[in-house]
Amino acid sequence: MKYLFRNAMVITMNSEMEILENCDVVVKDDRIVYVGKAKPENAEHSKVIDCTRKLLMPGLINGHTHVPMTLLRNYADDKELQTWLFDYIFPAEEKLEGRDVYYGSLLGIMEMLASGTTCFIDMYFFMDDIAEAVEKSGIRAHLSRGVSTNDRGSDFSDHKGLNESIEFYKKWNGVACGRITGAFGPHAIYTCSPEFLKAVRNAAEKLGAPIHVHLDETRTEHEDSLRNFGKTPAKHLYDLGLFDLKTIAAHCVWVTPDDIALLREKDVTVAHNPGSNLKLASGIAPVPEMIEAGVNVILGTDGASSNNNLNMFEEINLAALIQKGVKLDPLLVNAQEALKMATVNGGKALGRKDLGSIKPGNKADLILLDLDKPHMNPLNKPCSALAYSAQAADVCLTMVDGRILYRDGEFKTIDQEKVYYQIQKICRRILN
Amino acid sequence: MKYLFRNAMVITMNSEMEILENCDVVVKDDRIVYVGKAKPENAEHSKVIDCTRKLLMPGLINGHTHVPMTLLRNYADDKELQTWLFDYIFPAEEKLEGRDVYYGSLLGIMEMLASGTTCFIDMYFFMDDIAEAVEKSGIRAHLSRGVSTNDRGSDFSDHKGLNESIEFYKKWNGVACGRITGAFGPHAIYTCSPEFLKAVRNAAEKLGAPIHVHLDETRTEHEDSLRNFGKTPAKHLYDLGLFDLKTIAAHCVWVTPDDIALLREKDVTVAHNPGSNLKLASGIAPVPEMIEAGVNVILGTDGASSNNNLNMFEEINLAALIQKGVKLDPLLVNAQEALKMATVNGGKALGRKDLGSIKPGNKADLILLDLDKPHMNPLNKPCSALAYSAQAADVCLTMVDGRILYRDGEFKTIDQEKVYYQIQKICRRILN
Repeated sequence: MKYLFRNAMVITMNSEMEILENCDVVVKDDRIVYVGKAKPENAEHSKVIDCTRKLLMPGLINGHTHVPMTLLRNYADDKELQTWLFDYIFPAEEKLEGRDVYYGSLLGIMEMLASGTTCFIDMYFFMDDIAEAVEKSGIRAHLSRGVSTNDRGSDFSDHKGLNESIEFYKKWNGVACGRITGAFGPHAIYTCSPEFLKAVRNAAEKLGAPIHVHLDETRTEHEDSLRNFGKTPAKHLYDLGLFDLKTIAAHCVWVTPDDIALLREKDVTVAHNPGSNLKLASGIAPVPEMIEAGVNVILGTDGASSNNNLNMFEEINLAALIQKGVKLDPLLVNAQEALKMATVNGGKALGRKDLGSIKPGNKADLILLDLDKPHMNPLNKPCSALAYSAQAADVCLTMVDGRILYRDGEFKTIDQEKVYYQIQKICRRILN
Repeated sequence: MKYLFRNAMVITMNSEMEILENCDVVVKDDRIVYVGKAKPENAEHSKVIDCTRKLLMPGLINGHTHVPMTLLRNYADDKELQTWLFDYIFPAEEKLEGRDVYYGSLLGIMEMLASGTTCFIDMYFFMDDIAEAVEKSGIRAHLSRGVSTNDRGSDFSDHKGLNESIEFYKKWNGVACGRITGAFGPHAIYTCSPEFLKAVRNAAEKLGAPIHVHLDETRTEHEDSLRNFGKTPAKHLYDLGLFDLKTIAAHCVWVTPDDIALLREKDVTVAHNPGSNLKLASGIAPVPEMIEAGVNVILGTDGASSNNNLNMFEEINLAALIQKGVKLDPLLVNAQEALKMATVNGGKALGRKDLGSIKPGNKADLILLDLDKPHMNPLNKPCSALAYSAQAADVCLTMVDGRILYRDGEFKTIDQEKVYYQIQKICRRILN
């Protein structure tokens, strides 16, 4: 299949941050093959998509989420963390079955496609069901089975979660034309013993798999680590050798300057989740300090139970706003930086130079935004418009791997009514 | 004209915060006349609006803005305050003419109607042109001519701004079936001398007019006031007798506990502008402390040059999120409180019990939200959904004073293409 995006304003997100006007972008199969001035031959054998008064940009990469938690959206809010977790979230999650997770994932994927996300980085359980939803829907995802210590033997050879992680990675990594990649997901230092973290690390290393972990999310986690291990959570993982593997560490709200140096040294990517960190009162991550140190920072929504949506435009906006207000410095995290976190930096996190920017040879993961709304007029500086004025609903077309998955409110690969019907049934069963 | 909103979920925002399901709401002329269970006779002689899978709530009240500044949207961002003001905003504003302000206002009003705002509280200049845009568009507004000291005589009898304020109030207060109300707008303590503030106060008192003022927005303003007047900005205005008139004070970021007590004592309404305060690095207003003290807090977007939109759903979201994250307390500013700030509290600020909630006898300022989007599924707790999941684009119908002004992307009273055309022309002239 060949598509021609004609007459677009293109936010390339390339290293020069070029913005091109009246531009043709040609997609052949799963790749971008041309970006430049209009040429008549581009239209040959192409489906032409008129982009007048529209803006084309790379699809957004959601750097940290738990997609089936859409099922728990707006269920428990404005509560103490312990009450929220132990009285609401965990009891509901205990009732989950594989098919619930499948439909919850489809719901989350619909939401992501409609709001411009073309790839997400996830950690949960019933991962086969999530992978199936990814495969079916056409979105791109980096998936890990979240695991924590349990009491099954000291060498963890019969550990259910770890064995599922190994099987999951072998079964799904590289599947769906490479749209699915796998990782290992040791949950966090407060749910995984040091020995278990080592076992997970070794299993991942053997398979050449990367790591996705929660790190230093709350002050409690940070203080407990100092008390229990005599070091910060980041130093703890560093010393266990986890960071020797390619790692994405979610949150990093309480990291110290020394921790930031360790993250930089080991090329750990930090997934910043401003909405979730605010809502759960975890705190404000030192993002400007991490960027300054050269750490690769990406943006995530976290699960919809603590956000309560999977709207990356909100996260871009929050990432650009909160540091300025909290540190009284209007120059912190400018619009371009926030947009990078949601695009190219996500590609880097996945070791993929062909994701997160628009240039020939890259994957055709693209989104189109309608500029014909009052809040996008006048447009003036397009990066400012995207970070400070845009709404997720401005997205009118989402393409992944060269396939249009969403256009003007319509999902091409997902039966919306069926998913809503199933979600209603599931929620009646699992929620009080 | 009679309308029947049939089978709606209704967020009443009444004192019991009732949420009604499968509800009829009947509007006759400019008022709500019925709220309750479906009755066949409600449909008689009514235009029926099917609200299945839709949510009806009071229109949002934007508590502080400068609506024509939509013209400067995305023009200058991520800059130091002084650079932003003196190198970009003021030079552009100097080129403004009355007709520019008229079209800038229409653009802002379109944006507000499309995002669920039915009333806005404004301070700017060329106020006749703003009032004309309000009259024509059908929205509701509380308007004040922003004034500051200049060098024209010590008794200010020939002060252009003050005289315009008096004329504006006399000409427009109560006009357009009462949709327009007037106020006096002394800009701020750092642009108005004490003598001038007294002159404005006296002129307003003579006419029985209320006050709209910027207050304690930045640390600089706060510290300068301590140095120049030996007291805080709030105490300064209190001592000048300004708060003896009905007052809306925008920002109040740096107010002290003593200031909060003064604001409470004088029933001053505080307009909180979280987006603008973050973006301009002004700081985080002590909103929980003000609410705790019983101060009436409302929500505003500020101008689109420092936000960069007029999206009240974003402000609701920010108001609910930022206090939690900054003060590490997930119980601060819950969803209901944030929604009150954007609705009933706005009614209170205007001395209007018939605005900001849904009950018989109230003004028919109503908005309808489409719940059939992935990010609003499952709905679970409707107030959580509105504060944490919703997007402004979920608004599918906006009614002011019993008239539908916006429905499904279409503006009933404003020629969208003409406004866009004029905005383009104006921006080419006034922006570099």
